[in-house]
Amino acid sequence: MEIKVVKNIREANEVIAAQNRAVFDQKGIYVINLMGGPGAGKTTLLERSIEHLKGKRRMAVIEGDIATCRDAERIAAYDIPAVQINTGGACHLDGNMVKRGLEDLDLEQIDLLIVENVGNLVCPAEFVIGEDAKVTIVSVTDGDDKPLKYPLIFQVSSILLLNKIDLLPYLDFDMDKFRAETLSINPHVSIVPISCKTGTGLDEWFQWLEEV
Amino acid sequence: MEIKVVKNIREANEVIAAQNRAVFDQKGIYVINLMGGPGAGKTTLLERSIEHLKGKRRMAVIEGDIATCRDAERIAAYDIPAVQINTGGACHLDGNMVKRGLEDLDLEQIDLLIVENVGNLVCPAEFVIGEDAKVTIVSVTDGDDKPLKYPLIFQVSSILLLNKIDLLPYLDFDMDKFRAETLSINPHVSIVPISCKTGTGLDEWFQWLEEV
Repeated sequence: MEIKVVKNIREANEVIAAQNRAVFDQKGIYVINLMGGPGAGKTTLLERSIEHLKGKRRMAVIEGDIATCRDAERIAAYDIPAVQINTGGACHLDGNMVKRGLEDLDLEQIDLLIVENVGNLVCPAEFVIGEDAKVTIVSVTDGDDKPLKYPLIFQVSSILLLNKIDLLPYLDFDMDKFRAETLSINPHVSIVPISCKTGTGLDEWFQWLEEV
Repeated sequence: MEIKVVKNIREANEVIAAQNRAVFDQKGIYVINLMGGPGAGKTTLLERSIEHLKGKRRMAVIEGDIATCRDAERIAAYDIPAVQINTGGACHLDGNMVKRGLEDLDLEQIDLLIVENVGNLVCPAEFVIGEDAKVTIVSVTDGDDKPLKYPLIFQVSSILLLNKIDLLPYLDFDMDKFRAETLSINPHVSIVPISCKTGTGLDEWFQWLEEV
């Protein structure tokens, strides 16, 4: 019974996500659905990316959070359009929330829209929002055993950013195991080790961003 | 519409959780619902707790994961009863999953049952399973801004374990801010800084465990 309800909710979501997709196509906007657990570094990655792309692409950001406007305030400080969606308890963004968020953006003035999802390694992976690509960021501090335990988000991602590698000397993190298990789930994903704090590895991410 | 469906699912869950609760009361079992994001250190905390309580309390563990039996295998190595529940995509344990897990345990032989929920700072907080107490573990590596962004899980917890404090020298983590924001949501919660790696702070947690 519950499964059927969930299936209906997902199908209804796909209809709205397709409407978003049509809008993005019409306006020529590339859309990234940025996902990751709490504290993986999504907003800091956004800040680094905005600094890099300034003057190259016309960016905008939609911030999804259960509560608070802190992330949108951080982004707005960089003087680009930022919309905060508070899900009020819901554990992921869906097509309808993003659709409403779009009403607060001037879509004629945007080339690249990054949607930062709610901090959660599970539910966001199940709901499309009309995006071109899903990007997931995980942190080495969360351990090397995450890919097989949270397989869907690793499976649906085009690029996987492995953040906080500046902390590797203080952790027991098996990079070979992490890589092998990630690729066993998604053989085509690019795994990019980065540190948003030191800047290590960000060039490869920026290159990916510039090419989309 | 979606909200009403979710409300019905939660109410149905509460009925089953109350049935679990009646079983726990009858058998004299204290039940902890252990929650936290992916990689916060839930299973490592369990390992340290089992080592400490060995011979003092008759423990059992129910492990909730989207996929894999790795956590239950880790626990079973300590020679205590451990049941793995694979939610197959669901982002939290509910009363019914725990009820089915209980069928694989000899409830006459258990004083303390710890249920490790799916790694997620959002959804597990919304579903009771018949527990006596909710315990949440978060990691300093996830940042000091989590309480206000994920308020419900901080609000419903009896004790909050702040793990990985051995990494504090390498992080920008404002302990005063974290404490103040946590207490603004839940003035009665005990905040216990720990390191499952070095053992720092675990005595306070063990004392809490021994007193329940």
